[in-house]
Amino acid sequence: MAACIFCKIIKGEIPCFKLFESDKTLAFLDIGPLSKGHALVIPKFHGEKLTDIPDEHLSEILPIAKKLVKVTGAENYNILQNNGRIAHQVVDHVHFHMIPKPNEKEGLGIGWPTEPADMDALKAYFEEVKAKM
Amino acid sequence: MAACIFCKIIKGEIPCFKLFESDKTLAFLDIGPLSKGHALVIPKFHGEKLTDIPDEHLSEILPIAKKLVKVTGAENYNILQNNGRIAHQVVDHVHFHMIPKPNEKEGLGIGWPTEPADMDALKAYFEEVKAKM
Repeated sequence: MAACIFCKIIKGEIPCFKLFESDKTLAFLDIGPLSKGHALVIPKFHGEKLTDIPDEHLSEILPIAKKLVKVTGAENYNILQNNGRIAHQVVDHVHFHMIPKPNEKEGLGIGWPTEPADMDALKAYFEEVKAKM
Repeated sequence: MAACIFCKIIKGEIPCFKLFESDKTLAFLDIGPLSKGHALVIPKFHGEKLTDIPDEHLSEILPIAKKLVKVTGAENYNILQNNGRIAHQVVDHVHFHMIPKPNEKEGLGIGWPTEPADMDALKAYFEEVKAKM
């Protein structure tokens, strides 16, 4: 945590383009934007992945993401939260991206390598997961 | 709304592999999965984009997404919500993907076409957006 860049931003030890702050949540512009308006919403509670964050520290995330959409005027956009290096997470403090998608070139690029589902296998998997809910 | 496939799933007119349901929220397996465990969390409130959903209908989304991560056993994963065709939205009813990323090939593909930020331009933009918060 001491070395976490987002914890340092929260403490004010590193500056940011702060758009919102409450006791639980911080929002600021991404300084490596994929498009104009690219911003981050983070819980102040330090946790690496989504499952590390208690529910009560997540309650403002989506409402603030909505607010970011409105003030940036984004019409098309992606809300993205990455968990793990292989899933493109770079900073190990949970953060939600709000990334405007103004055109094909700017904003998030998405690869969707879907294949036709094997419905029998999916049903068997469903029964397995459902039992754990 | 009458033609919305997710509203039909909510009403039970179309079946789904249902993992969770409350008065506000539904979660089910994606039948065109990018990886094993790919699931969706949706508000029952019909809205095309995130900004169309009242805050009170969003409160369970992230806690349920966390639950999906746990029951599928995903270690690396992406939480994604797309808004607009150009941003890869296919069904016009807000839905959050929980997509496990088990390896490079399966799961979400991400393109990150960032360019070095012009910090003066970013600061000027920040002042403009900040004034609207």
